[in-house]
Amino acid sequence: MSKHLERDLTNLQQHILLMAGSVEEAIHLGIRSLRERDGTIAERVIAGDSAIDQEENHVENACLKMLALHQPVAVDLRRIIAALKINTDLERMADLAVHIAERAAALARLPPVAVPVQVQHMADLTMAMVRQSLDAFVNLDPCLARRVIRLDDEVDRYNREIIDLLLRDMQKSPEAISSGVSLFSAVRHLERIADHATNIAEDVVYLVEGEIVRHCPQAVNGPD
Amino acid sequence: MSKHLERDLTNLQQHILLMAGSVEEAIHLGIRSLRERDGTIAERVIAGDSAIDQEENHVENACLKMLALHQPVAVDLRRIIAALKINTDLERMADLAVHIAERAAALARLPPVAVPVQVQHMADLTMAMVRQSLDAFVNLDPCLARRVIRLDDEVDRYNREIIDLLLRDMQKSPEAISSGVSLFSAVRHLERIADHATNIAEDVVYLVEGEIVRHCPQAVNGPD
Repeated sequence: MSKHLERDLTNLQQHILLMAGSVEEAIHLGIRSLRERDGTIAERVIAGDSAIDQEENHVENACLKMLALHQPVAVDLRRIIAALKINTDLERMADLAVHIAERAAALARLPPVAVPVQVQHMADLTMAMVRQSLDAFVNLDPCLARRVIRLDDEVDRYNREIIDLLLRDMQKSPEAISSGVSLFSAVRHLERIADHATNIAEDVVYLVEGEIVRHCPQAVNGPD
Repeated sequence: MSKHLERDLTNLQQHILLMAGSVEEAIHLGIRSLRERDGTIAERVIAGDSAIDQEENHVENACLKMLALHQPVAVDLRRIIAALKINTDLERMADLAVHIAERAAALARLPPVAVPVQVQHMADLTMAMVRQSLDAFVNLDPCLARRVIRLDDEVDRYNREIIDLLLRDMQKSPEAISSGVSLFSAVRHLERIADHATNIAEDVVYLVEGEIVRHCPQAVNGPD
């Protein structure tokens, strides 16, 4: 690999990690605004989104420049393509954090409703998946990536459990339907954030092993 | 452009259009299974997904091979990157059609519930967006792409209208909460399909004009 390409790849990685830090913060605050019924925190998440959007544009342009300039092949090419895809996933995670904050702002205006404790567990697990998928990318660690992919099943289990709880609450107290539906939406957005972390992990496996694990459940059970 | 690259780009485009045809069919059948409470049609959509997944893998590999082999620059590079991103969007649309079919299968097992007429209007509009975003890609037509981007606001309006209707129905008849929530999910999946069509349209504007219209509302109001 040329020194220039190596330097550009390192820069690219640092930009992605910076962006990932902002995205993690947005998810964390989105969930906090939901749990604490805090419209001010929700507004902060919503206002912070445009900086992440600009960062996405910057990273995409950097990837295209690197492809044109260095004309990389093999693993270098795959690293840049992985960065391009991870960039899109990160930006969509930030959008989902905004959607969670929007639901939190709506809930803060409705009569108080209990947020099931499982929502925080699901959020903790999702944030761990986001962090680990990026660690797997930076350290080119397909074993860690495979663990992230398997965690997604646990997030889906939490999701179903919470939906059942919310349905029961709504049936018992029809006056809680509006808040129940808002909470239901917020939880679905959280589930989609975990899906994006899974996408990143799948891209890491492909990047390192050249094996597409998307749509191949048996390939997820590799070494770890 | 070399003849080889030209031939490969034409092949790539044909593969994407074939895949798009399958995805459009999946969305169409997903909505039909919802409207007609037809679990058999829903099963067909679910069973058909793995063929689309394989097609996605094939297109992604073809894009990577073209990047490595032809080392394209400028507009050819952007065309391949656009194809790579459109490929991901198409596959996720197919996943969403499966999610709609899953909700339809669940609804078919519950007491019948009226599907608001707006759902079909929203579905028609979404399918038009999908078709037109791909036409814009094939014909490199940024004006058509901008029209698609603007249509997304109309889909969002339908989405909000349907959610209000469903909330009112659930509050009137708490026994309809389970089906209301399933229908609510299906409509959210449809809204996300329209978001992916918008992504494709944004990629087309970037491909042709080199201008990133994501996150820039004013850039959407170009000529049409």
